[in-house]
Amino acid sequence: MLSVHEARERILAQFSPLDTTRCPLELAASRVLAETIRAESDLPAFDNSSVDGFAVRVMDVAAVPVRLPVVADVPAGKAPNFRLQAGQAARIMTGAMLPAGADAVVMVEDTDFGHRAAGASAPQQVCIQKTVRPGENLRKRGADLRAGQEILPKGQVLRPQDIGMLAMLGAATVPVYRKPKVAIVSSGDELLPVDAPPEDGKIHDTNTYTLAAMAAQTGCEVLRLGVAADRREAIQAILDQAVEAGVDVIVSSAGVSVGAFDFVKEVVESAGTLDFWKVNMRPGKPLAFGSYRGIPFFGLPGNPVSSFVGFLVFARPALRRLGGLEAARQDTVRVVLAEAVESDGRESYLRAVVTRENGISTARLTGHQGSGNLFSLVQANALLIIPSGVKSCPPGTEVEAWLLEN
Amino acid sequence: MLSVHEARERILAQFSPLDTTRCPLELAASRVLAETIRAESDLPAFDNSSVDGFAVRVMDVAAVPVRLPVVADVPAGKAPNFRLQAGQAARIMTGAMLPAGADAVVMVEDTDFGHRAAGASAPQQVCIQKTVRPGENLRKRGADLRAGQEILPKGQVLRPQDIGMLAMLGAATVPVYRKPKVAIVSSGDELLPVDAPPEDGKIHDTNTYTLAAMAAQTGCEVLRLGVAADRREAIQAILDQAVEAGVDVIVSSAGVSVGAFDFVKEVVESAGTLDFWKVNMRPGKPLAFGSYRGIPFFGLPGNPVSSFVGFLVFARPALRRLGGLEAARQDTVRVVLAEAVESDGRESYLRAVVTRENGISTARLTGHQGSGNLFSLVQANALLIIPSGVKSCPPGTEVEAWLLEN
Repeated sequence: MLSVHEARERILAQFSPLDTTRCPLELAASRVLAETIRAESDLPAFDNSSVDGFAVRVMDVAAVPVRLPVVADVPAGKAPNFRLQAGQAARIMTGAMLPAGADAVVMVEDTDFGHRAAGASAPQQVCIQKTVRPGENLRKRGADLRAGQEILPKGQVLRPQDIGMLAMLGAATVPVYRKPKVAIVSSGDELLPVDAPPEDGKIHDTNTYTLAAMAAQTGCEVLRLGVAADRREAIQAILDQAVEAGVDVIVSSAGVSVGAFDFVKEVVESAGTLDFWKVNMRPGKPLAFGSYRGIPFFGLPGNPVSSFVGFLVFARPALRRLGGLEAARQDTVRVVLAEAVESDGRESYLRAVVTRENGISTARLTGHQGSGNLFSLVQANALLIIPSGVKSCPPGTEVEAWLLEN
Repeated sequence: MLSVHEARERILAQFSPLDTTRCPLELAASRVLAETIRAESDLPAFDNSSVDGFAVRVMDVAAVPVRLPVVADVPAGKAPNFRLQAGQAARIMTGAMLPAGADAVVMVEDTDFGHRAAGASAPQQVCIQKTVRPGENLRKRGADLRAGQEILPKGQVLRPQDIGMLAMLGAATVPVYRKPKVAIVSSGDELLPVDAPPEDGKIHDTNTYTLAAMAAQTGCEVLRLGVAADRREAIQAILDQAVEAGVDVIVSSAGVSVGAFDFVKEVVESAGTLDFWKVNMRPGKPLAFGSYRGIPFFGLPGNPVSSFVGFLVFARPALRRLGGLEAARQDTVRVVLAEAVESDGRESYLRAVVTRENGISTARLTGHQGSGNLFSLVQANALLIIPSGVKSCPPGTEVEAWLLEN
């Protein structure tokens, strides 16, 4: 049997990041940056006023009160085309560019001028009532960042504030990794479409829905192709549909019957390769990985919880790497078991609720751990990872828990 | 001055959840459930085999080895239409429905039959080599959940496993809250479109990008209308565009100039109301809230960090409530300051990096806290909340930190 780690490494060796593309900034939130971004210019790009007030030369207001002629009016958005001379003031708005010659701004509240309403014109003279230091009430060019400085690292998942920063730098498009395109398929005569009425002996297709949502959550473009019947031709047809759509990866979860997967095996091997591994894990021990017509193929088990865990542990890191992210699995936390937990010696992923009180995270299982019991996964917010070789953990044992994303 | 809490409560009083709609299951991931979902039937819906093997009556295999005639073959997906009689066995596949009369399954590994390949026919007789207990290797009807049991609560943001669970229950469509539709606008003659070359005295429009991404992250449908010039007609035109698009909320961030906001005020008040509040917070002290042609209107400050914080603190809770979520602000953690932090007595939201080591979270500011310094927000992963009335915190002080979403 392979360890989980060995199986994942063998899979990851087959994946490297996809090509990159330029995305309009407006659509770039949550995309993965494909290049490190550096500032092309200083920010602020020019000295500007942080208040509404009057631009002055500090030496002219060393003794106050002092009355100065107002020689210009500088609104935000207009570059002043004059030089402030000795003994002059210029009205200036918040964000407006400081005129040459000036070296500070006096706040309007520290003058005798109170008309701040839109459109009010500047006075002819202003009485300055408070001294200022050089640079006071200014935002100096380059105070926030310098041209050439690294802003955002390659691999960053773009957050709203990152998008804003790129806008501030005038980046109308952004270099991002292409989204991996993933086909989700299943097979099995026992699987009913979701809108079909219940039928004795049959169950609704569950896995294509779960796996499609997981792939989307991993940043993929998803093609949910649904369920093929347990026939060679039906399975070949659905896989060829994935190939024609140009997907990067095919993720299949077989129906629970042995027969279903045997046909998948035959079809994949007719135009590719498929390795069957027994992985030392629970749930999800049987895992198939290979390629069909050159496209990587994951064959996950059919039980709903097994396919969920198999996707998280094996497919998600591969898809993350394709999409330009670190393959590493998600963050784990240390938790304390509130109850005894039995395992069977395999690396086990057990559904649990982790709660945090007084700084301590404790975990309780959410129900029986049968691999068909999806409800216990719905009730869970974490998977406890019981290492291989461990068969029982008394209450109070500290174990690793993998927090499930919302 | 209003406290942050008072201002938020006044705003929230104006909002209640939007109407609900039915969403195809395939599109329901991350949507907010509008009704509590209960199981309509037991799961599993019928007793079924958890292994490939032979369905038997326990009393017939009390003494082993014993040879039994194989009277039927039960694949997954077919309802058996016979009753197992005393002394009979039936081949059965994983997931297949248990025939009436049988009360356990013997694994194929515990028999003399090894042909498990797809399409292999059942033997005429099988030699059972191991006894079984009643119910062994069965998944009993209702073992995972019972008809009527609550599956998912109203207000749940649907995760992949929830989508799978709904598929399992045959829910082809799901009741969800309608997504709030939000218009994002800005105004100011100093604001350049993102694709315009830099110009002295002007800056690129940043806020409509940041705020649009924040609204999308909050689960909204977003209409980014861009920047209006500092003219009454331009501002009225952009607001009317939002009204005609049928948005639920308008979020505006003014340019940094006073003039810009004065025109916004005039236009909004010409067809609605606008309250101007000074909120005891930093950044983001000036806040306007009202309605334009019956649509709630948020007037956020123009500085990039102020509008970011204003959105998080005031608009986000309102949009969450509209969308059927709890309005409550996001989770906070307690962190220890690694350095002295000065404040000015207002409730302050300071950009910081929180790191966790040996179970202790420590925080450091990411740079100068000017409200135009978006780069310090890009470098941050949290906002430290310094309560009102506090002016300085020595290193080692424990404060609340609001973790920023990815």
